Amino acid sequence: MPLIFWLVPLSAALALLFAYGFFRQMMKHEEGTDMMKKIAEHVRKGASAYLRQQYKVVIVVFLVITVIFSILAYGLGVQNPWVPFAFISGGFFSGLAGFFGMKAATYASARVANACRNSLNQGLRLAFRSGAVMGLVVVGLVLVDISVWFFILNQFIPETADGYKLMTITAVMLTFGMGASTQALFARVGGGIYTKAADVGADLVGKVEAGIPEDDPRNPATIADNVGDNVGDVAGMGADLFESFAASILATALLGAAAFLGAGADMQFNAVIAPMLIAAIGTLLSIAGVFMVRTKEGATQKQLLHSLGFGVNVSAVLIVVFAFIILYYLGLPNYIGIWGSIVIGLLAGIGIGQSTEYFTASAYKPTQRIAASSNTGPATVIISGVGTGLISAAVPLGIIVVAITLAYGFATPELFSFAAEHINFGLYGIGIAAVGMLSTLGITLATDAYGPIADNAGGNAEMCGLGPEVRSRTDALDALGNTTAATGKGFAIGSAALTALALLASYFEEVRMMYVKFLGMPETLINDVPAIEAAFIDFVYHFEIHLMNPKVIVGIFLGVMAVFLFSGMTMNAVGRAAQKMVDEVRRQFKTIAGIMEGTAEPDYARCVEISTKGAQKEMLVPSLVALLIPVIVGLVFGVAGITGLLIGTISSGFALAIFMANAGGAWDNAKKFVEEGNHGGKGSDNHKATVIGDTVGDPFKDTSGPSLNILIKLMVMASVVTVGVAVSYSLL
Amino acid sequence: MPLIFWLVPLSAALALLFAYGFFRQMMKHEEGTDMMKKIAEHVRKGASAYLRQQYKVVIVVFLVITVIFSILAYGLGVQNPWVPFAFISGGFFSGLAGFFGMKAATYASARVANACRNSLNQGLRLAFRSGAVMGLVVVGLVLVDISVWFFILNQFIPETADGYKLMTITAVMLTFGMGASTQALFARVGGGIYTKAADVGADLVGKVEAGIPEDDPRNPATIADNVGDNVGDVAGMGADLFESFAASILATALLGAAAFLGAGADMQFNAVIAPMLIAAIGTLLSIAGVFMVRTKEGATQKQLLHSLGFGVNVSAVLIVVFAFIILYYLGLPNYIGIWGSIVIGLLAGIGIGQSTEYFTASAYKPTQRIAASSNTGPATVIISGVGTGLISAAVPLGIIVVAITLAYGFATPELFSFAAEHINFGLYGIGIAAVGMLSTLGITLATDAYGPIADNAGGNAEMCGLGPEVRSRTDALDALGNTTAATGKGFAIGSAALTALALLASYFEEVRMMYVKFLGMPETLINDVPAIEAAFIDFVYHFEIHLMNPKVIVGIFLGVMAVFLFSGMTMNAVGRAAQKMVDEVRRQFKTIAGIMEGTAEPDYARCVEISTKGAQKEMLVPSLVALLIPVIVGLVFGVAGITGLLIGTISSGFALAIFMANAGGAWDNAKKFVEEGNHGGKGSDNHKATVIGDTVGDPFKDTSGPSLNILIKLMVMASVVTVGVAVSYSLL
Repeated sequence: MPLIFWLVPLSAALALLFAYGFFRQMMKHEEGTDMMKKIAEHVRKGASAYLRQQYKVVIVVFLVITVIFSILAYGLGVQNPWVPFAFISGGFFSGLAGFFGMKAATYASARVANACRNSLNQGLRLAFRSGAVMGLVVVGLVLVDISVWFFILNQFIPETADGYKLMTITAVMLTFGMGASTQALFARVGGGIYTKAADVGADLVGKVEAGIPEDDPRNPATIADNVGDNVGDVAGMGADLFESFAASILATALLGAAAFLGAGADMQFNAVIAPMLIAAIGTLLSIAGVFMVRTKEGATQKQLLHSLGFGVNVSAVLIVVFAFIILYYLGLPNYIGIWGSIVIGLLAGIGIGQSTEYFTASAYKPTQRIAASSNTGPATVIISGVGTGLISAAVPLGIIVVAITLAYGFATPELFSFAAEHINFGLYGIGIAAVGMLSTLGITLATDAYGPIADNAGGNAEMCGLGPEVRSRTDALDALGNTTAATGKGFAIGSAALTALALLASYFEEVRMMYVKFLGMPETLINDVPAIEAAFIDFVYHFEIHLMNPKVIVGIFLGVMAVFLFSGMTMNAVGRAAQKMVDEVRRQFKTIAGIMEGTAEPDYARCVEISTKGAQKEMLVPSLVALLIPVIVGLVFGVAGITGLLIGTISSGFALAIFMANAGGAWDNAKKFVEEGNHGGKGSDNHKATVIGDTVGDPFKDTSGPSLNILIKLMVMASVVTVGVAVSYSLL
Repeated sequence: MPLIFWLVPLSAALALLFAYGFFRQMMKHEEGTDMMKKIAEHVRKGASAYLRQQYKVVIVVFLVITVIFSILAYGLGVQNPWVPFAFISGGFFSGLAGFFGMKAATYASARVANACRNSLNQGLRLAFRSGAVMGLVVVGLVLVDISVWFFILNQFIPETADGYKLMTITAVMLTFGMGASTQALFARVGGGIYTKAADVGADLVGKVEAGIPEDDPRNPATIADNVGDNVGDVAGMGADLFESFAASILATALLGAAAFLGAGADMQFNAVIAPMLIAAIGTLLSIAGVFMVRTKEGATQKQLLHSLGFGVNVSAVLIVVFAFIILYYLGLPNYIGIWGSIVIGLLAGIGIGQSTEYFTASAYKPTQRIAASSNTGPATVIISGVGTGLISAAVPLGIIVVAITLAYGFATPELFSFAAEHINFGLYGIGIAAVGMLSTLGITLATDAYGPIADNAGGNAEMCGLGPEVRSRTDALDALGNTTAATGKGFAIGSAALTALALLASYFEEVRMMYVKFLGMPETLINDVPAIEAAFIDFVYHFEIHLMNPKVIVGIFLGVMAVFLFSGMTMNAVGRAAQKMVDEVRRQFKTIAGIMEGTAEPDYARCVEISTKGAQKEMLVPSLVALLIPVIVGLVFGVAGITGLLIGTISSGFALAIFMANAGGAWDNAKKFVEEGNHGGKGSDNHKATVIGDTVGDPFKDTSGPSLNILIKLMVMASVVTVGVAVSYSLL
């Protein structure tokens, strides 16, 4: 191992060290009054109970998949023998990251509320650094897993003369991403259903029927609602981005191994570790960025946002500089072009985040128009929200289109050469753009996780009846959290799409390897350019992955079908689970005397249990859809069908996810805009109309939308790891 | 011309003759009381005013496109000189069909209401036969245009030894479809915006604010609402299916010319006229079917539905029989397989219709569950409608997937051979499946057009205060119309998707022709099988229409983007136009004294004008998006980008269209289900919640959803006719 490689485990260790440090620092703070402690304890218990339940289901699924992988590897020999272990380790580390992140968040909420009794700056710093625990644990554990596996496989897998060793290593490591994917599936889908069943249930009975405010301790579902923020927005979001971070690095490593197959062992090695080093640099700079986030007392909303943005932006700029230095040091040919691809990825992430803000923040026209449509009642609020959401999807789609074109074009040896012999390099460019977009993840995720912590702190303050000054501070932090949550969602979706495309590219490379291995094309042929070109023609033609092949067309339709089916299922799941919550809350209001007077405590635990069970039950069928469709399509329609399926899923899933996230975010903020005194303000008919919009938006933005991130990545991942099956056993 | 060809003009003439006969028959009936005449006159005037306004815009667009086509044909020489004329004729005939259909519908409504004063059977027959005017005029004019053009071009285009004459003829004729497409774009988008602006506007102020019933003559927007049914559901639907019918026949003719290029002149000729003959047979059997529709007095809803279904089903069964005879007579090799493809198309159409009925009729679980979710208010009604709508899209997608696979597989010389040299035959199979699906159009469209006629008859009866017995009869006809409208929508979308796929296939063939012509591949090569195979490899490779090409991937993303952008725009257009209608109705209620007492007449004409202007203004931008995107993508990303764009648009547009149509239909019927006395019945909170769902569903099912039918066909069409531009001038 060259010296520079050790930057990867070093940055991983530092990330985990700082995460531990921030956690210890946070734990030193006081949790406040007895009431505050009690509420926090309720939420903590609920969250742990949910996580335990979820891990039980996940373990069963992991056992089944591990058995299947073992059969494929040891029985049929269509998979590498290391695969089952890599798969398990990915799932394990992802679960661990979710566990630590959520522990930190649930310990932090009351402490943040308490810190707000002193000053806004203390509250912000504490909330943000608690969020940073999640951010740094995620990137740290990804890099630990990657560096350990890379080190081990590099020792154990035998050298080959033609450079296939690194392709095998990176292909095995990609299954680590499959473990993370599967874990993320259940965390996002289950967590998403949990949080919105609780939220919708709490709102429908509490706010609408009983007329009590949000986070009122008299509402039996209010604890479940706060638990939901943690399991959905902290653990779910964390697992989602854990997967994107891991998969983008691993896919790019494989793409690098493939692109530089004929360029000499050193060059190929450097291309493989380049994405790992970029991620490592990003991690170190994220730690630095975290320390730059601070604010002064009485800061305005804009200043608070600026404080957070300052940390992220400084990290991003420094990454651009250091990425250049690293690539120069690695000495890859066309390193300036590859650096360009990284910059494109970073810019695309920022662009998507900004377009999300434009379409969802009440400072801009689109959301204001939705708010204004409340003049003609809830129906027009829904219509204009759907219309705006659909249009809003066009912008990130456009950004991704430009990003793909540029990232691909920059990375080709001759700029923007779309010739077949350069495809490998172009695909590497798309992969490394995804790594570039995600390189700031340590601090971006801290910003994301900050949101639900601030939200819970506000909930704690509200439930414990803290003074108006404290509440105005937690409100300021919470409002900031809503903005970061919206842009964070855009970032999560955008990076999921780019990661999925990188995975799709690595799918092509894997099939090509299979093609070489199973179909008897001489391996040596692959080292000279005309042979590579010929191999590509052959490859495209052999598997007929062209658009005149009906199997490809059918695959694309099936990909779109999977997206619509999956999001319809998650949407209805929230409806059903929320219904059970509504029944329970109504029952408690009716049967427990003294709830409304505040003399009797509602049965919080029962509501937590209902959300937990509902989420567990409802997540199974959509999850099976996501896992089984690629395998079935592969068996029936082969590689051609799969490639169609994947691109159909990625393109339409990305669009639908953005539509749902933005429509939901815009409805939420349209309601807040009215609550700020516009169009009649709180309690007016306009307000009621926007509350309906907000409730509709809940499963849009927090369940179905984000779950699609997982779907698009998981389906590619599942196809990648079962590539041998589709190649060897397809029916048509 | 062989004798059998004359069946096409003959059936066209008969269709037009019977249409004229039905029209004359209908005109002989009395319009009823003076009040009935007056109301009908208002609607008729409004509809004519709208159509005149729309045609003005359309003429300008046609002039511009004709100039562009003339430059391409006579200036740059990348298009056939006949193209501009074919384009104009398609637009002209489509416009004519819309004009006649709407005339018949607007003359029929009061007469149907009047006939219902005598008996239900008289009402049904009159309404259905008036709808049949539209159905038969559409299929008749399509077949007139096709047979005249085919005859003329066959005379004027010189014979070539290698069979390229028929490819040129069919390619020119396809531009006739482009004319129909452009006409349909404005009819569907403009008509869709018109009808829902009026409907939503009328409902929001009339039903919700003023508390007066639907179709109350005191509501100033009620005439505009009735006009809307005619311009949207009659003229818009007619233009949409005119295009599908024409395009499916023409695309299949071209696919036949390409597939049988090396099979001898007679065989090729027979393959080209086969789709025309199937359509002709379908037309004749549709006329027969119309005469089979009758019912007895006091018929139940189910019996009425059975009466309509009987006519359609008998026609369909007979088509299956006669198609076999025709194909046998034509002596195409593998005629049994091709016949199989036709049957698959017919079955797919029926399957999609039935799935639409399942997901939208109140007799089934999905709609009942949406109705039940009104227990927790309007938000859950919307959530469950969206969830159900999304899931419902999966079924037609699945049907289309199966249909493509089977239609392709059956039509290949060796059953289900997916080898490259058989691609031509497989694509012909997909085309002829589309023709099969649409072969019953004469009678299916009669059933569709029947709906708005019955609706308007009900409106007329309501406004004129006819007796309860008459009203119960018109209500029965209207309810039936709602069911046929839902299945008709499913059929329209399904046939649009299959037609678009046939068009996409013909795009491939056109590019291949261009490839041969411009890129110097010897034409003679194309007559033997190994050469065809080689040409395909070459073709796929030259244009790189494979999924590893980033241009294809980018194209797919852009296709999805176009779909989301377009439907968001049409959705918001309805919101804006409805807002203007709301303002006007509120103004009239406020300023015109005596409206609510019924002593003063509202200013109906002003509302008609507002809807007309709103629709005209709002339809322009989305229409430009639909027309320009394929051209721009072709110029930047070439053929590879275009093919990606088209398949992205077709797949995601189809799914979104089904989602919107079904969600809208289900909300509509959930409301009706509550009105029938379930969940509290009319006036309850549950009812109010479902009324909100219904209003949201209006632009879903009648504007954005159906407009997508046009988008997916038009974008392919525009790509087909500008194929020379993309091949010759693309940037990347």
